[in-house]
Amino acid sequence: MREVFQQELREVQDRLVEISTLVASSIENATRAFNESNVSLAEAVIADDDQIDTAAAELDELAINILARQQPVARDLRIVVSALRISASLERMGDMAEHIAQLARYRFPDKVVPKSLRPTFAEMGALDVQIAKKLVELLKTEDLKIAEDIRNEDDKIDALHLSVFDKVLGETWKGAAVDTVDATLASRYHERFADHAVSIAKKVQYLATGDWIPTDS
Amino acid sequence: MREVFQQELREVQDRLVEISTLVASSIENATRAFNESNVSLAEAVIADDDQIDTAAAELDELAINILARQQPVARDLRIVVSALRISASLERMGDMAEHIAQLARYRFPDKVVPKSLRPTFAEMGALDVQIAKKLVELLKTEDLKIAEDIRNEDDKIDALHLSVFDKVLGETWKGAAVDTVDATLASRYHERFADHAVSIAKKVQYLATGDWIPTDS
Repeated sequence: MREVFQQELREVQDRLVEISTLVASSIENATRAFNESNVSLAEAVIADDDQIDTAAAELDELAINILARQQPVARDLRIVVSALRISASLERMGDMAEHIAQLARYRFPDKVVPKSLRPTFAEMGALDVQIAKKLVELLKTEDLKIAEDIRNEDDKIDALHLSVFDKVLGETWKGAAVDTVDATLASRYHERFADHAVSIAKKVQYLATGDWIPTDS
Repeated sequence: MREVFQQELREVQDRLVEISTLVASSIENATRAFNESNVSLAEAVIADDDQIDTAAAELDELAINILARQQPVARDLRIVVSALRISASLERMGDMAEHIAQLARYRFPDKVVPKSLRPTFAEMGALDVQIAKKLVELLKTEDLKIAEDIRNEDDKIDALHLSVFDKVLGETWKGAAVDTVDATLASRYHERFADHAVSIAKKVQYLATGDWIPTDS
């Protein structure tokens, strides 16, 4: 029984790694579509989000199934419950990548943001991609050094997010209202993507150390 | 044992009702602060969000505790797992109310949005408040008619959300960039608030009917 259970926990972990790999590929393509105004890549990201949703829902079913059959307690129980939460966050990260791709598609053949903001979004996008790749590693290895890296990169994204508002609200901003709307939404999506990664990193940290971090913020 | 378990499930339900009541009061105050530019009310909403976070975290602990001690299966297990998910959505609804209050505080003594958009936001805010109150009733009674009402009101909010963009991107829009940013964010927060309510309504429906609705969207 114990052996079967350990194997099922590994299956849960493997699936989380798989879903996070899909999310990493999704954000990589979404930010490329956004930065290069690549509409077919944007459409691929939008179409592929269903895969992430399905994989997350299947993982949830597996986790509930394990709870019902194995009735884990203590740390094992927390692992399964955390998997449910991590899967919800991964699903939302996929949604954020999809939203970024949707912006690219709406504005095609134009680029989503004016020239003055492109370096900032290129940097935010690159950080989101890095964070997503680190998340895959974190879920694979549970190496807490990576959780710390993710938090640090999220700080950088938060700073870039604020800098977008500084630019948009500054005197030199010449963008039309549509540019302002798009920059606001795009920045929010990039920032939320990273927030979810931090929330997952906290859950992995908690599982490894037993320090309960109560909220999801 | 069974009796204790039923009592614990009622406790879970009572706590969900309590948290949703806090959320309803939070969105009521947040939208009033937003519409009337009431900075002290905005600050109260921001300060009180911790209460919602704490109540949600405590409910999660209770749910995990029940899983560990009672080892529920079948429908009972799904009730407890759903409670965990509903609590996460309620916590996010509280965050959205807080964000709306933050916008009111940032722009004080000005109002957040220019005159031409105020009726739209008054309507969105009123719908969010209605939805939050209906959610309290839904969690109390599990009356599926209410779940349907919530979905219908969410459709109205989605239409208003789109109308904000129509206005901001229309030729008559005279707002400065700051107005455009605020309207974009405020509209998004109002819309997301309702999305979370729909997501909760789907979970309650699922529990009542057994129809599994896989994703969280």
